[in-house]
Amino acid sequence: MKHIDLNSDMGEDFGTWVINGNIDREIMPLISSANIATGFHAGDPTVMRKTIELAKYYGVEIGAHPGYRDLMGFGRRYIAMQPDELVNDIVYQLGALRELARLYHVELQHIKPHGALYMHLAKEEASAQCFVEALHRIAPDLLLYCMYGTAVWRAAQSLQHPVICEFYADRDYDRSGSIVFTRRIGALNPDDVAQKVLRACRDGVVCTVEGEDIPIVFDSVCMHSDTPGAQELLKATCELLKAASIAITAPEKKPVF
Amino acid sequence: MKHIDLNSDMGEDFGTWVINGNIDREIMPLISSANIATGFHAGDPTVMRKTIELAKYYGVEIGAHPGYRDLMGFGRRYIAMQPDELVNDIVYQLGALRELARLYHVELQHIKPHGALYMHLAKEEASAQCFVEALHRIAPDLLLYCMYGTAVWRAAQSLQHPVICEFYADRDYDRSGSIVFTRRIGALNPDDVAQKVLRACRDGVVCTVEGEDIPIVFDSVCMHSDTPGAQELLKATCELLKAASIAITAPEKKPVF
Amino acid sequence: MKHIDLNSDMGEDFGTWVINGNIDREIMPLISSANIATGFHAGDPTVMRKTIELAKYYGVEIGAHPGYRDLMGFGRRYIAMQPDELVNDIVYQLGALRELARLYHVELQHIKPHGALYMHLAKEEASAQCFVEALHRIAPDLLLYCMYGTAVWRAAQSLQHPVICEFYADRDYDRSGSIVFTRRIGALNPDDVAQKVLRACRDGVVCTVEGEDIPIVFDSVCMHSDTPGAQELLKATCELLKAASIAITAPEKKPVF
Amino acid sequence: MKHIDLNSDMGEDFGTWVINGNIDREIMPLISSANIATGFHAGDPTVMRKTIELAKYYGVEIGAHPGYRDLMGFGRRYIAMQPDELVNDIVYQLGALRELARLYHVELQHIKPHGALYMHLAKEEASAQCFVEALHRIAPDLLLYCMYGTAVWRAAQSLQHPVICEFYADRDYDRSGSIVFTRRIGALNPDDVAQKVLRACRDGVVCTVEGEDIPIVFDSVCMHSDTPGAQELLKATCELLKAASIAITAPEKKPVF
Repeated sequence: MKHIDLNSDMGEDFGTWVINGNIDREIMPLISSANIATGFHAGDPTVMRKTIELAKYYGVEIGAHPGYRDLMGFGRRYIAMQPDELVNDIVYQLGALRELARLYHVELQHIKPHGALYMHLAKEEASAQCFVEALHRIAPDLLLYCMYGTAVWRAAQSLQHPVICEFYADRDYDRSGSIVFTRRIGALNPDDVAQKVLRACRDGVVCTVEGEDIPIVFDSVCMHSDTPGAQELLKATCELLKAASIAITAPEKKPVF
Repeated sequence: MKHIDLNSDMGEDFGTWVINGNIDREIMPLISSANIATGFHAGDPTVMRKTIELAKYYGVEIGAHPGYRDLMGFGRRYIAMQPDELVNDIVYQLGALRELARLYHVELQHIKPHGALYMHLAKEEASAQCFVEALHRIAPDLLLYCMYGTAVWRAAQSLQHPVICEFYADRDYDRSGSIVFTRRIGALNPDDVAQKVLRACRDGVVCTVEGEDIPIVFDSVCMHSDTPGAQELLKATCELLKAASIAITAPEKKPVF
Repeated sequence: MKHIDLNSDMGEDFGTWVINGNIDREIMPLISSANIATGFHAGDPTVMRKTIELAKYYGVEIGAHPGYRDLMGFGRRYIAMQPDELVNDIVYQLGALRELARLYHVELQHIKPHGALYMHLAKEEASAQCFVEALHRIAPDLLLYCMYGTAVWRAAQSLQHPVICEFYADRDYDRSGSIVFTRRIGALNPDDVAQKVLRACRDGVVCTVEGEDIPIVFDSVCMHSDTPGAQELLKATCELLKAASIAITAPEKKPVF
Repeated sequence: MKHIDLNSDMGEDFGTWVINGNIDREIMPLISSANIATGFHAGDPTVMRKTIELAKYYGVEIGAHPGYRDLMGFGRRYIAMQPDELVNDIVYQLGALRELARLYHVELQHIKPHGALYMHLAKEEASAQCFVEALHRIAPDLLLYCMYGTAVWRAAQSLQHPVICEFYADRDYDRSGSIVFTRRIGALNPDDVAQKVLRACRDGVVCTVEGEDIPIVFDSVCMHSDTPGAQELLKATCELLKAASIAITAPEKKPVF
């Protein structure tokens, strides 16, 4: 690998509320792709606009980060919705961000569903299919961030919609290649995280919670901005990658898939 | 006049709630431009999508009908917002509808703010200016529905943004040319309304509540879908206009202003 | 049986939106207990107040009808919440209604969770337990409407919290005694529904979709106000019950359990 | 003066969002009365419950802090509502907090409207009258926090509803006795604030922005928890008051008025 994409969730403030101090300003200079919350689980039109502006300033590509209509639960609670309702909610949010970006003559690079919606689309075929069909109709070039081999990834393959597969720098993997999800992440060691990312980039493997190496397929590394110490984790990672001559850049427009 | 535009607010259901029986299905065949609620004061992504579909079926042009973030008050309550917050909310809603319309390969024709937002932009210079500037940047051809001579109309003139001036078929005018706003409209006589519209189209005048004729400048007639008996009012109006050889058609793309 | 309680969901309008014409005014005179929506899935403070007023006028007992925080989905979509979050949401809603009722010197008789929340509490032990514990602490005499044998019923038994078991007049039962839930109910025959209720009251049985009679334990008959033709169904039921000398009255304050 | 009440707005987090770091835990030990946000402009049922628990732990009296239905604007934006709608919204919120407090066997001491609602009730007679009438009906002993001489204060006088008049430690006064409102407060000097409060307590005067002393009538000192450095301001104030033998205690139950 000569270069890799680093993505983070950005713009998660809402009204007067700030999610994590000045985390957006600290992290934006370090990443290459920003997933911008689109108002249903976090973010609001004014926050979205400021986040677009910030990303543009640092030359960071942007994407829509739609979630369930659930400010109260920050989009982390599954809501039992029909596939078509769910897709309409996503399209609505995507358009909202696209329009605000137009104010800055910025085009969206990608879309990445948030939280419980991300997990649902990874598992549920009907919703995944319905979502990718709609996405492909309205934005055939918009990169879809997802995990390799999931339902939404398969739907994208079948429709030849371009995807970017993710590796989670701040999450543990199990033997099956699944992420071991936890609601609260404890403090992580910056060097460990950096080494884990470097190993994934160079050798294509990650060590599972069971202690074995498994292969990992990805085009982008995700670091959650609300992981404690996210800035330090990212800094250590960036430095180690640079030392290994791996540049941090947004994905090329037409990835092979 | 050889033809005139008829516009109505459409898609005002929300979730399970239906605003006015089957009013959209009854009225859509009679009008030429539909103002579609965009989710902040009424409407939701699924309702928006169905309304776009219905408009497309009847060959009706569509526009965004953004409102204050106030489902509870149906966008009829003034909210004291900063001009930039207000504009970001409008752009968000506009983009949401545009994206959903893209699913049907439909382009938006216009934008018309709703309720208390419409009234605010008619009066407040700073917000009107800020709104039209943003609109002109992201959608320079999108027709802006407004009332002749208002603050938002003046802002559009100064930026050479295309406008469509409205005449309200179901509201009374006073001597100053202002609408006499009332929260609830009583039953109107279909023949009276039809005659009022015909007179406005043919002679360019309306009789005020004070009993005098005043000149009225307009490109489109608005009939509120929640006015009691809206369908009958529209039917009578359409028949009388047709009898007078005035066709009901959406405005031409580039109106002179 | 000499008398039976009839309950219906009331006050499900929201802001400008009306759920089902004048259904509250039509149904209120026919029932003995009203479940009043408390603003999270339907209803709002002003609607709640009007509904309390209406119930008081007709001498109908009232109860809180809390739901998931989901106006968009009318509380019919399951939301994955922690038991304590869920209980706090219920207590909040209960208090809101209690306070509004205090304006009319009216005491609440009961509580009945709504839609997907009702179903969740019928199945999930931890949430049911957590809910009944909180309820018993703040309102030890408040009747809990539920279905016989469910998780929430068992939790109430173990804490000796008074319950009212429900029979659903407008739903089908299967062999297991469970309701065959459907999102939309087709037209029901008033005589059939009335006979079904009378049989349940007199003989304590209901005929399942499989065609067999099963015993049914209940203290109250529920008729949904959004079932098509609800008023006719209720009228026919009331008349048949009266003809059989079964009075429609709210439950006695301290039911045996 | 031998003692004075110190009140602050508490429980202003919402869902995942934290308003001001650990401000509640820092400030709660220093005050005698906590105004708890009730979910319309800030706070949620779970936050409310935690805040009640925290206040109980430190022996701090609690009150409802209802606001406009405007999470996005944090209740700081005026919304044009009818008096009865506004009052129903307040009663709803009051009841919600009362019920959650019942879980801890805690009674509410007071009510204090928030932000733009506070300002509106200070000025608008009809809403103020309608609010105090409802309040007096449902909670005749609940202390109403307000400013001396305002519309809501006058309404309380006429109904003999008990009030607690406030002095704002972190706001400037003008010659008319009105507060000079600003959306963002700059850094204040703790000693200056402490001296200002001591002077108001001891001499009953405050120095206006015009440089003159005016008399000030109050029973409680308010310090906003979102004023930068609120904890330091409060600490300095508490120390100076104690040094002057003025104890910080909640108001006596039946203040003279």
